[in-house]
Amino acid sequence: MTDDTQATEGRMAKVTTPTDREIVSERVFDAPRELVFKTYTDPELVAEWWGLRSTTTIVDKMEVRAGGGWRFVQRNEDGTETAFRGTYREVTPPERIVQTFEWEGMPGHVLVETVTFEDLGERTKMVNTSLFHTTEERDGMLEAGMESGMNESLQLLDELLERLRSS
Amino acid sequence: MTDDTQATEGRMAKVTTPTDREIVSERVFDAPRELVFKTYTDPELVAEWWGLRSTTTIVDKMEVRAGGGWRFVQRNEDGTETAFRGTYREVTPPERIVQTFEWEGMPGHVLVETVTFEDLGERTKMVNTSLFHTTEERDGMLEAGMESGMNESLQLLDELLERLRSS
Repeated sequence: MTDDTQATEGRMAKVTTPTDREIVSERVFDAPRELVFKTYTDPELVAEWWGLRSTTTIVDKMEVRAGGGWRFVQRNEDGTETAFRGTYREVTPPERIVQTFEWEGMPGHVLVETVTFEDLGERTKMVNTSLFHTTEERDGMLEAGMESGMNESLQLLDELLERLRSS
Repeated sequence: MTDDTQATEGRMAKVTTPTDREIVSERVFDAPRELVFKTYTDPELVAEWWGLRSTTTIVDKMEVRAGGGWRFVQRNEDGTETAFRGTYREVTPPERIVQTFEWEGMPGHVLVETVTFEDLGERTKMVNTSLFHTTEERDGMLEAGMESGMNESLQLLDELLERLRSS
């Protein structure tokens, strides 16, 4: 177990599958809601936490409004790239974002992600619900390692929030 | 009842909602399967039948292969335009097409359309299954007049098939 892993103990997202087409992740952050919401909607901040520790995220497009599009490129250490894209369906600061999500490696498989931010005072509870068209697509996402990837990304978000709060 | 309506009697699609997230349309065409499949995959032919009688369809993009995109612009008689787009997930000539479908007027609401073509000799049975993320989106599509619009479009396809067979 590395030092990084130890640091995340007790801070893993709670992941459940309440229906046959959903994945729900819950995570509490040590930061006020407005700040957590900002890390989801400010392109410069998204680039700092979105994706894996070993990849660089390039925010190619991020039109944070209902109907706007987003596209994030993930550059691996070996220079290869892959990208994710979607459309914002709802942006309600500082409490709710609804957007579609599609990996360009499997085009046309589109899920709907609803992210809510609950105000716990100095802390914020984030609940992320991913809704798929079919159980097969949901299970494919889980088998692709979605949970560990998300936890790594949210750990980067924790670290970013700590930097933002102490700066 | 107009002459046009009389001409379509008995040739309306059978529309059902077998689950709470689906719309299934069935229609038989008086043309062999290869020809019907071609009208779905040839941009020049699509422009002739897709949409309503009162609109002009401009095929802006049509990359008929798995992962390719499509975008059709509908120009109304008054010059206003609206557009539809999606991604081909599967193209298996001459029997099956799977694609996403999204109206740009409601971006981020994406359905998956599976169209199968069954060989009945000189006739072809087309079955179109639309799968939505939610019942609300499915019902919204029905309330928007999807069934009558589709029937008008498939009537145009009937007329095109007749021209193609007699030419």
